[in-house]
Amino acid sequence: MIKFAVLGYGVVGSGVVELFYKNKKSIEKHAGCEMDIKYIVDIRDFPDSPYKDKFTKDFSDVLNDPEISVVAECMGGTEPAFTFVKSALDSGKSVATSNKELVAAKGDILLESARKQNCNFFFEASVGGAIPIIRPLHRCLAANDINAVAGILNGTTNFILTKMYTEGMAFSEALELAQNLGYAEKDPTADVEGHDACRKICIISSLVFGKHVYPENVYTKGISEIELCDVASADVLGHSVKLVASVKRIGDGRILPVVMPMLVPHENIMSGVSDVFNAVLVYGDGIDKTMFYGRGAGKLPTASAVLGDVIEASKHNVTVFSQTWTSSEDRSFIAPVDELSAKWYFRIPADSACDVEDSYCDENGRSFITKENLTFAQAKKTAEELNASAFMPVLGE
Amino acid sequence: MIKFAVLGYGVVGSGVVELFYKNKKSIEKHAGCEMDIKYIVDIRDFPDSPYKDKFTKDFSDVLNDPEISVVAECMGGTEPAFTFVKSALDSGKSVATSNKELVAAKGDILLESARKQNCNFFFEASVGGAIPIIRPLHRCLAANDINAVAGILNGTTNFILTKMYTEGMAFSEALELAQNLGYAEKDPTADVEGHDACRKICIISSLVFGKHVYPENVYTKGISEIELCDVASADVLGHSVKLVASVKRIGDGRILPVVMPMLVPHENIMSGVSDVFNAVLVYGDGIDKTMFYGRGAGKLPTASAVLGDVIEASKHNVTVFSQTWTSSEDRSFIAPVDELSAKWYFRIPADSACDVEDSYCDENGRSFITKENLTFAQAKKTAEELNASAFMPVLGE
Repeated sequence: MIKFAVLGYGVVGSGVVELFYKNKKSIEKHAGCEMDIKYIVDIRDFPDSPYKDKFTKDFSDVLNDPEISVVAECMGGTEPAFTFVKSALDSGKSVATSNKELVAAKGDILLESARKQNCNFFFEASVGGAIPIIRPLHRCLAANDINAVAGILNGTTNFILTKMYTEGMAFSEALELAQNLGYAEKDPTADVEGHDACRKICIISSLVFGKHVYPENVYTKGISEIELCDVASADVLGHSVKLVASVKRIGDGRILPVVMPMLVPHENIMSGVSDVFNAVLVYGDGIDKTMFYGRGAGKLPTASAVLGDVIEASKHNVTVFSQTWTSSEDRSFIAPVDELSAKWYFRIPADSACDVEDSYCDENGRSFITKENLTFAQAKKTAEELNASAFMPVLGE
Repeated sequence: MIKFAVLGYGVVGSGVVELFYKNKKSIEKHAGCEMDIKYIVDIRDFPDSPYKDKFTKDFSDVLNDPEISVVAECMGGTEPAFTFVKSALDSGKSVATSNKELVAAKGDILLESARKQNCNFFFEASVGGAIPIIRPLHRCLAANDINAVAGILNGTTNFILTKMYTEGMAFSEALELAQNLGYAEKDPTADVEGHDACRKICIISSLVFGKHVYPENVYTKGISEIELCDVASADVLGHSVKLVASVKRIGDGRILPVVMPMLVPHENIMSGVSDVFNAVLVYGDGIDKTMFYGRGAGKLPTASAVLGDVIEASKHNVTVFSQTWTSSEDRSFIAPVDELSAKWYFRIPADSACDVEDSYCDENGRSFITKENLTFAQAKKTAEELNASAFMPVLGE
């Protein structure tokens, strides 16, 4: 019998409890042992909950209980999550978390704690919600040299861009709809400005390339400056505008992680990823490319990923060493965004003297995509010279 | 040090050897131990191969060598693959296979052998080539009650249908192109008539629902009767024609696996899966839906999946019990295709007196999609009554 604890009874934590009891029988079959939730830790009171006898406000109940071998952390934020998770790992309890902020900021430290104690620190739910991506990356695709990953990793912004594209809504109008539907927070900064997607690409980059990539080292630009006319012109030019979080190994062994609105060609399967759905494209020397698609957030989708990790941690007492990375004091392995090489979309004044082929012109200006790759630095200079009102890279293969 | 053997040095087997030596260092890091290939078993001679000292024509060299703990079977076909794989498992060696024919026909027996000997029988490469689907299904999605799976599981037919759609080629012309490009065999029956896709949905159905589903119990219809005009009309009606292999749990606990050309709505992400690419959509109560996409065949993509399993089997000596199913003498849990419920596409004579809304009419007839679900039995009867030249189900959510 494996007994585990759930930290935090918000959207995700309550989803974990709900999904666990709904599918307990088949979950135990997958785990190969009986399982139960012994504690739910939350500072709030839930007197009407059917699980009210499991609630505690004191995390030390979990920490000091030798019966607890696995902890599901669903609190969010770095503190007290970090203190709780680290102390759990340090005492040999495996942890499954949905907390991308925690993993992006402190993953290296927590993985080191897990290694020392021969337990597991799992975080499938921290990237792409329901989408299995962390485990496939280090297990199923373990024979590959993975050289790039590109993803739509934030559902809120993808919903907004979809509404701009399909219904001609302006950004502000689509954001308001997202807020009314509960897809965006009252303060939508973390989603809209790309910080959420940034944390997720940091986690993927760290896992794939083996060194911790911190959010502050990743150039991050959100979608708040995207104008409807750019979404419309991109479509005419055969592309969808998406907030893409990507990382690529560049020639000299350095990597270039970035979060930016990009043009995704219609023939790329990722251009069809709409509404709140997320997707992650992985490029490797064996697989060529493979994509993982699904709901990137939400109560039960995220709970599904947390519980998948809890089951894995319960199944056997083997420490998974393939899902790991090290700390990196030296950050010179991260190339600056200036080196980002791509074809670029520009929108310039309609009456510009600039001579471009295959451009699309309307009252908002002249839009075109370069035939050749330019670096970000070159594109920025070109944008200034042409007095461009918008410029974005095109996602390449 | 883990030493493994590769059975068969054809396309997949040689890909396994190539990819292993290319990425040996990172593969060993993922496995957590040193690894090497000790034998390559093939009845042919490869005197110029850089691995010529590893070749043997005698499988008993592998079987009788206690140093070999893992075998990668890439021969294809049921014999001698079955005899070799079973004897390897019976002697406690784990097996990773790319052989869908073997798994679809004999998976239950081989899983039973693996269970008895506490070793592993892995077959990630047997479905969807490079796409991680088997391991995500039983591990990452283990917390879900999975109620349906629908996939594009054959690259050859998807290539043909894509060419019909994008370039207006007739079926025979697209098939010839596929043969010229090496995507289709000289005798294309197994691909074109759906037998290959059928084996794959049998493997998925067995894994998801826990009982062996045999190909002879699955209604299978290929694409050889698809006319260009149906692909074109479907497009006008907002759908792509795809060869879909699907399985669904129906009301009374029975399951309904089927392989048929279906209309996939353009807003379904799977309608954008083109050329030789495969994709698998999984529906569960936690995840809602998630899709896995990638190359379904080919040397290195398939090798990537085989090696992922070899690494997994090398990593630790824990037997994976969640990836299993049992034999099923009684096959009454499989519902007949007559019960398949869907909206249906019909093409009827243009001058038909039948009164239908939202139909599309050209010189080839009048095409429409029913507003209500009909069973296959009802649709067949309707097709006869309306003198329909084509009828196909629409893939629902």
